[in-house]
Amino acid sequence: MAALERVRTPACVGLDPVLERLPQGLRPRTTEPAAAAEAIGEFSRHILLAMTPFIGCVKVQSACFERFGHWGVSALEGLIRDAKELRLEVILDAKRGDIGVSAEHYAAAAFDRPVGAAPDWITVNGYFGEDGIRPFLRPGHGAFVLVRTSNPGGVRVQGQPLAAGGVVADAVASMVAEIGADSIGARGFSSVGAVVGATDRPAAARLREAMPDQVFLVPGFGAQGGGIDDVTPCFRPDGTGAVVTASRSVIYASGGRDADWARRVSDAAASFADEIGRAAGWR
Amino acid sequence: MAALERVRTPACVGLDPVLERLPQGLRPRTTEPAAAAEAIGEFSRHILLAMTPFIGCVKVQSACFERFGHWGVSALEGLIRDAKELRLEVILDAKRGDIGVSAEHYAAAAFDRPVGAAPDWITVNGYFGEDGIRPFLRPGHGAFVLVRTSNPGGVRVQGQPLAAGGVVADAVASMVAEIGADSIGARGFSSVGAVVGATDRPAAARLREAMPDQVFLVPGFGAQGGGIDDVTPCFRPDGTGAVVTASRSVIYASGGRDADWARRVSDAAASFADEIGRAAGWR
Repeated sequence: MAALERVRTPACVGLDPVLERLPQGLRPRTTEPAAAAEAIGEFSRHILLAMTPFIGCVKVQSACFERFGHWGVSALEGLIRDAKELRLEVILDAKRGDIGVSAEHYAAAAFDRPVGAAPDWITVNGYFGEDGIRPFLRPGHGAFVLVRTSNPGGVRVQGQPLAAGGVVADAVASMVAEIGADSIGARGFSSVGAVVGATDRPAAARLREAMPDQVFLVPGFGAQGGGIDDVTPCFRPDGTGAVVTASRSVIYASGGRDADWARRVSDAAASFADEIGRAAGWR
Repeated sequence: MAALERVRTPACVGLDPVLERLPQGLRPRTTEPAAAAEAIGEFSRHILLAMTPFIGCVKVQSACFERFGHWGVSALEGLIRDAKELRLEVILDAKRGDIGVSAEHYAAAAFDRPVGAAPDWITVNGYFGEDGIRPFLRPGHGAFVLVRTSNPGGVRVQGQPLAAGGVVADAVASMVAEIGADSIGARGFSSVGAVVGATDRPAAARLREAMPDQVFLVPGFGAQGGGIDDVTPCFRPDGTGAVVTASRSVIYASGGRDADWARRVSDAAASFADEIGRAAGWR
């Protein structure tokens, strides 16, 4: 992830645009999906411009675009193209998962794009096991498999104690480590990463140990309740191996105000970048 | 599901169209996504026409359409509109799952459609727990939560033995039964259903007991290896409570031949409808 090194921080902006929180001047006059998709696409493009001086990675929430049907998907395609033009590392947060043959289709949906317009990573649900994950492991691309999520309900399945010890998330972690073992790149990380929510410090430490070769994608920083202390165990001792994502605290930094809104986003990105860069010891 | 009663069978056609298996005459001349999306849309429309005299329910595999980008999504939207016009029960097989706020967006993507153009059900991944499922439970709509899938890799996570007894799929089943308890309709079934692969007879029987109020969506009949004996424990003793899906054995019944291909699909649908209708005791 050279894009992170350029800006000396393993921070990532989560792009989850919703109409209600756009600056007034960008909100569409009608509620037609075509107009809505155009508005969130335009907002998102400005976020990319505002963040790129400070942050090298963007995670795009597919659901926010899909809700506007094919217009939304078209806006998403354009956005990913723009993000790649800005040399950003792009994570498509789509949380796909299906049996092997259908996972192949989802991998094609994500990665069979025009040259320079495909995301680098996709998020994947591991409930289907290995054949639901492998199709996403294409050369030059990777998958972050959901291990431990940051939402309140997550513990109901992920936290079930296993007969063999540990909980369900630990079993998923061990599967992820195993599947990822044969795709470790020059920098010592696998193309199979792990989503590990930033809301439980001991859990993060245990998962770091179980998945030494995985890049952790750490959502939930800021608005979802995770703080810097919850995040640090996700890194390797040398400060590599985790990408920390903040969404609402950055992209809505202007609080809906029009005046200078993109500048406020840019300032919030700079400050988030610095916080994570220092926590990881990159600056 | 009145559409099933009309045709006296709880059978469902799984619509998973791929270019390589279309009848020669429908294959596009170019590999451009716009042309590909149009071709699978056209093929799918013919399948709807061929099946509707005999089968009342269609499960559409979203991945097959998404792989062609916004053109594919547009074709999918048109197809669902046509299916509803034919008064079919429509299951959008999208296997979505995310934290609550993003699940809301996915629910909007599925159900906030023009009047008469929304699917009745969606398939949902339960790894996020309750807040990832509830957003899909809108009046008049329901969600089939993945409990036990029919693919080879599924057992790695779903089959993990739990400290409390049973396996992970059983814990998901008990969550599904609990979440579904407050949305039981006039016919005695919940709007929270369960996906239960038709490849293990004892597992199916155990899950039927754990989820008495759930409709089971049973994929994997035919091409994926499940036979009629694996399917029968998914029904309640009175033959209600399960929808059995076959895909490739019906939609590719012509084996790529052009001549009379739609008629062959129609005959295959009739025969599948009859097999399942008899197994369930509806005829």
